[in-house]
Amino acid sequence: PRGVITLYELTGAEDARRFSPYCWRIRMSLRHKGLEFQGVPWRFTEKERIAPAGAELVPVIRDGERWVHDSMAIAEYLEERYPDRPSLFGSPHGAALARFVAGWTDRTVQLNASRPILMDIFTCLHPGDRDYFRTTREKRFGKQLEEVCPDPRAELPPFRLLLEPARRVLRKQAYLAGEAPNYADYALYGTFMWWRMTSRLPPFEQSDMMSDWLARMDEACEGEGRRALAAVGMGPSG
Amino acid sequence: PRGVITLYELTGAEDARRFSPYCWRIRMSLRHKGLEFQGVPWRFTEKERIAPAGAELVPVIRDGERWVHDSMAIAEYLEERYPDRPSLFGSPHGAALARFVAGWTDRTVQLNASRPILMDIFTCLHPGDRDYFRTTREKRFGKQLEEVCPDPRAELPPFRLLLEPARRVLRKQAYLAGEAPNYADYALYGTFMWWRMTSRLPPFEQSDMMSDWLARMDEACEGEGRRALAAVGMGPSG
Repeated sequence: PRGVITLYELTGAEDARRFSPYCWRIRMSLRHKGLEFQGVPWRFTEKERIAPAGAELVPVIRDGERWVHDSMAIAEYLEERYPDRPSLFGSPHGAALARFVAGWTDRTVQLNASRPILMDIFTCLHPGDRDYFRTTREKRFGKQLEEVCPDPRAELPPFRLLLEPARRVLRKQAYLAGEAPNYADYALYGTFMWWRMTSRLPPFEQSDMMSDWLARMDEACEGEGRRALAAVGMGPSG
Repeated sequence: PRGVITLYELTGAEDARRFSPYCWRIRMSLRHKGLEFQGVPWRFTEKERIAPAGAELVPVIRDGERWVHDSMAIAEYLEERYPDRPSLFGSPHGAALARFVAGWTDRTVQLNASRPILMDIFTCLHPGDRDYFRTTREKRFGKQLEEVCPDPRAELPPFRLLLEPARRVLRKQAYLAGEAPNYADYALYGTFMWWRMTSRLPPFEQSDMMSDWLARMDEACEGEGRRALAAVGMGPSG
């Protein structure tokens, strides 16, 4: 019998505030595959706890003796290790779609989403993580945290335009992957769990088809996302 | 027996300089499907010639009595009308990948590629198209054509970073679509035909895997792209 997988998840001040976009990709993937796992809270400054994975950042999983880090590498590991479980990619074209969407989310979506919610994230952090976050982010943005995005609402319209490639697909089908979600959807969904676990800014207008997709994704994997938002008192739409 | 399809293609001062990125998607698609077609030169100011399609911009195709415009709509039309020919999408996940890549290319890649090559495009235009181009582009960019990108080489490094989602896929396989190209590849390739039909700026560094993909794509469909570049005296890498 298989053991229970451990997933190290970035967590805010409260243990229930699991907000990492990349950890959400894996939480959804583990549910998708129906694998038993235990999510354990981890904070930015606890580098030594994940050192056996050769990693400094989460997600990290431990599966028996095996440690794996990096969200895409973990997804590929799970796919290969548990081929009898529902596939995260579905087909070779599906794997290309998932890699492309994950790459686009990492490069374009995350960066542009991070500015409007930056101070909300900071507010949610465990006090012990705040110095680390301030130092690394001020280096990344080249300015004081408070000066990165003085008017978050002003950044919403250009951010929403960036999501156009997803709309092109969602005009034809309910999920990026088709009639049911897979890793392509989880890759993008992670951004909006991160967003809504920390911020009350609405990522989309109600009339935007992205809102409908997000509502469907909140119900995916037996309402995993919806329940996590409720547990920290955040509404499903921010 | 089927008639020959007519493809209206945006053309520079010389008839051989077919430089529209969206027309290239369709030229490659027609070759991919092995359909006989005649590409006819069209210029920005010849709106009345494509009016029967209900379009103001190319690509436009005429297939017997049927006119179709918009590159994605044409690809979908060809796929449906000629189901016995090689598929442009390959699978439902392949269609989602193609739509996503086309949407990302339209929204992110084209816009950021247009600035460094803007003056090179202008130089290649038919004299009768120059006023139209200047007026429409100055409105789009909100400044004089000459002021949009005073230092094209400085825009290359950030532009190249944007291509990261494609690299994520190409690290695993030769083409975005897998072992052979399909519409996902043609959608992105159109941008680099447009670029290299008009500009000698190198879109990528030689060591970049995108250069290898581009070289493979130049040989696709019996070297369609390579021959078109040679016909106007442009090298394959700009």
